[in-house]
Amino acid sequence: MPKVSDDHLAARRAQILDGARRCFAEHGYEGATVRRLEEATGLSRGAIFHHYRDKDTLFLALAQEDARRMADVAATGGLVQVMRDMLNDPDQFDWLTTRLEIARRLRTDQEFRAGWTERSAELTEAILTRLEQQKAAGRMREDIPNDVLLGFLDLVLDGLIARIASGQADDANLTAVLDLVEDSVRRGN
Amino acid sequence: MPKVSDDHLAARRAQILDGARRCFAEHGYEGATVRRLEEATGLSRGAIFHHYRDKDTLFLALAQEDARRMADVAATGGLVQVMRDMLNDPDQFDWLTTRLEIARRLRTDQEFRAGWTERSAELTEAILTRLEQQKAAGRMREDIPNDVLLGFLDLVLDGLIARIASGQADDANLTAVLDLVEDSVRRGN
Repeated sequence: MPKVSDDHLAARRAQILDGARRCFAEHGYEGATVRRLEEATGLSRGAIFHHYRDKDTLFLALAQEDARRMADVAATGGLVQVMRDMLNDPDQFDWLTTRLEIARRLRTDQEFRAGWTERSAELTEAILTRLEQQKAAGRMREDIPNDVLLGFLDLVLDGLIARIASGQADDANLTAVLDLVEDSVRRGN
Repeated sequence: MPKVSDDHLAARRAQILDGARRCFAEHGYEGATVRRLEEATGLSRGAIFHHYRDKDTLFLALAQEDARRMADVAATGGLVQVMRDMLNDPDQFDWLTTRLEIARRLRTDQEFRAGWTERSAELTEAILTRLEQQKAAGRMREDIPNDVLLGFLDLVLDGLIARIASGQADDANLTAVLDLVEDSVRRGN
């Protein structure tokens, strides 16, 4: 019965990812030891690393989950909507901090960076598709190449993650800032 | 001879800050132990902590140095020029990573966050003064309040720091992105 087995596999992986996310959020990347990952997931290290080869793989799987969720929102609402959602969901803050803590690793470890970039490819794809749709519908500035529009929105997203993760997000001001960001890429601003 | 004494004091403090900056850059915030700070500065812990009360104070003094340098550039060239300079100076990358590593601390430690905010007040002041001058000269959009323009530029700066610090800065693309940022806040775009 491969169907049942697939369901079980998916449920087990979801259990691992949920626990690992909480664990990274609470203890940071370095502090998420194997012992703590066992406690947070309720599974043995054998079970965890049967599904995810090592801590890096687990971390990158979480980054991929993020990218997929963001891609779903970006596909229909655009990347600015992703950012508005982040601003409205304080529960994400702990995990977002972990994303900053891995900066040194991203810079110095090429393999890790390659894995990270690969995981965000789906989000990039969703944003580019959305940009093209918006351009075709006459809602987006035509005078800026897509890779620059993408780079701009992505840079603002990184800024927002840094701001929220360090608890320096003033909602009222940032909402107006995101309006300006949206206005900057729209046609006829 | 208070003059000589002042010079000596300034030189000693510069020696400590330069060494500490290299030490934080190489080892990160947590890894910059007292022993390593002694090695990097060439001074004893007694001498170091005579001038800077503790590691936090030292770190915040470095943040203040950054803010002052940025404020000098921002006062005459604007914050986008500060960002262009960052993009052109790869030597800053190591230190910038440390700025991300303290995100959790900023979020959870109110006193530390207050110190951090206080250190960047000078930069905020310089940017606001520049914005007002640019508005008076008719070079800046009039329809966006200054605090939103400031919030926008500051958010992009945070994004750029995150990007550079994690080694994900594609110079060619980011140069065009900064052009778009500048264009977004200028009059008649």
